[in-house]
Parts: sequence; structure tokens; C-alpha cells
Amino acid sequence: MAGMPTPPTPIRLRLADNLRRLRDEREWSQEDLAAKAKLHRNQIGAMERGENSVGIDLIDKLAVALEVNVGELLD
Amino acid sequence: MAGMPTPPTPIRLRLADNLRRLRDEREWSQEDLAAKAKLHRNQIGAMERGENSVGIDLIDKLAVALEVNVGELLD
Repeated sequence: MAGMPTPPTPIRLRLADNLRRLRDEREWSQEDLAAKAKLHRNQIGAMERGENSVGIDLIDKLAVALEVNVGELLD
Repeated sequence: MAGMPTPPTPIRLRLADNLRRLRDEREWSQEDLAAKAKLHRNQIGAMERGENSVGIDLIDKLAVALEVNVGELLD
């Protein structure tokens, strides 16, 4: 998640849409998801804006917190 | 893919195993996959050793080159 934001790519937009949908289904705020995944709220916000090419280690933390397969976040 | 290598995490090991398997099924060398995904051969090698928390933009290039869903690389 380092460096300047770059324009969203299709996979970033899929991640952003899936994250918002999965949070909404659980009625979790960005803060709720951040706490469960041991991340900072700003990282969730950046992902939901497609700002970065998020690393797979972080993707796995989200999948574990949301109890979904990684494919449900990225496909 | 920047920075020093860090110990492989479970998701990196899954990516490494899936990449090798999908390459083998296609009888592609690391060079073949690198050329099709417009990456450097060294990047493929590093991923197959689990050295980095690969970014999702790069994961998507691999999935397109291999004609698989992202979940087939990471789950």
C-alpha cells in the first residue's frame, strides 16, 4: 500500500465493489472491518477508492476477517 | 514487488503452487509466462518462491495470461 495513489484498474474496482458489498451485508463500518482485519480504517478507505495495487498478504487478512474465499474479493 | 523478500505467508505459498501447476499444465517455462503477462522472468521466479506480497494489479496480469479467474491463483 506504499507510494502515491495511481488510477484504479479493473481488479481494484472489483475489490472496492466487493468490499463495500460484503461490509454492507454484515452491517459493518469501515472501522469494524479494520478492527477485525487488524488494519487501519484509512487502509479500508483507500481500498474502497481503488487507490493502490493492494498486496496479497493484506487481501488474505480481509478474506479471513470477512470469512470469504479470496476469489470472492477479487473476481 | 518492491523491497526485501519477507518469509512466505500461506497465500504466497498458494500462489506459488498454483502458478507452477498452471504453467506445468500448459508446458510453459517461466520465460513463456513472463512474456505472455508482459513481466520479467525474475518476477515469476520470485512469485514461485513466495518472496513478496504481490500486488493485485500484477495478479490480474497473470490471471489474464493464464486465462483463469483470480481465485484459481490465490485460493
